[in-house]
Amino acid sequence: MAVIRRLPRYFRYLQDLIRLDIKRISSRELSERMGITASQIRQDLNCFGGFGQQGYGYNVESLFNEISRILGVDKRFSCIIIGAGNMGTALANYENFRKRGFDIIAIFDVNPRKIGKKVNGLEIMSMDSLENFVKDHKVDIAMLTVPGKDANEVAEKVTGLGIKGIWNFTPNELRINNDAVVENVHLSDSLMVLGYRLRSNGY
Amino acid sequence: MAVIRRLPRYFRYLQDLIRLDIKRISSRELSERMGITASQIRQDLNCFGGFGQQGYGYNVESLFNEISRILGVDKRFSCIIIGAGNMGTALANYENFRKRGFDIIAIFDVNPRKIGKKVNGLEIMSMDSLENFVKDHKVDIAMLTVPGKDANEVAEKVTGLGIKGIWNFTPNELRINNDAVVENVHLSDSLMVLGYRLRSNGY
Repeated sequence: MAVIRRLPRYFRYLQDLIRLDIKRISSRELSERMGITASQIRQDLNCFGGFGQQGYGYNVESLFNEISRILGVDKRFSCIIIGAGNMGTALANYENFRKRGFDIIAIFDVNPRKIGKKVNGLEIMSMDSLENFVKDHKVDIAMLTVPGKDANEVAEKVTGLGIKGIWNFTPNELRINNDAVVENVHLSDSLMVLGYRLRSNGY
Repeated sequence: MAVIRRLPRYFRYLQDLIRLDIKRISSRELSERMGITASQIRQDLNCFGGFGQQGYGYNVESLFNEISRILGVDKRFSCIIIGAGNMGTALANYENFRKRGFDIIAIFDVNPRKIGKKVNGLEIMSMDSLENFVKDHKVDIAMLTVPGKDANEVAEKVTGLGIKGIWNFTPNELRINNDAVVENVHLSDSLMVLGYRLRSNGY
């Protein structure tokens, strides 16, 4: 899993190289750009079949294609957002997700004053209509941006309706009693790492 | 750095254990809770001086205190948000940051219609007043939630004013010509990992 978590970074950097029309790159150059050791890069990429050639480096395009294949960027996922607060609204407006294969097809909230309003072209729907919506549409992923206190109840509801993926923005660790996959976004973790790096820079 | 990036997770899990009044834990139990191998956990914690005792496990409280000390959670950082859009507003409303030592003291935007409005008790200020604000207040971290096209210009501006930490929510890789520390939040990376995990679960 540690390698998998680094793949999106390789994906982004290789995409930048392709945009710059760079055809090949050594693990040393990639290392300098990405701030990962060259030996870690060689080890990571060997996991997936070693595309490097001694003294030549990596062919950028074939490495990019292979990592895209592993990450499954050609596959599309249908997503719904639960919680039309600031974070939910911010996610609905992220154009990048669609480019990566994630289509946001609906957004739900419990607040009657929000229901019916539009967010990036999507009408905010009542949570009462969630069940019927999921029956009528294939939904792969629920993005949870509800208050922490509601997180587990909502997670149970969406997985009970057969949704297999949860992208959890609440600070809660979800208790899931089925085979759903939960990916947590812990923004505080990233901020704590920033604080650590500032301190260790003597700041 | 890989170990450092895992420390906030240890921090959170150990905090939960303290709340549950659990006094000690084996690397195996911690492993099951956290989904990290026991040997990785022993290796990580050995980096910081090995607090485990054979056959006893880890003393939860002293491990928590040591990790808190390493992460510097007792230190406080003054933060400003640049960009009062949905993401900026969401960040301004996150109560968790303050608990972790990050105080959001101001929020800035260029949009005249936003300036003067309040977000979680903070009045949105004009970008024109940023320079004077930074002269009058100690600011450690700028949280960047501006559009991607403005990211580099704003990053240059804030680091030029002496701000040492940037928490970057824009999709851009920032070009920083000084000793500022940049921590990127790439939400798409996390979503791509979720997509990968769903696919590898046969979904």
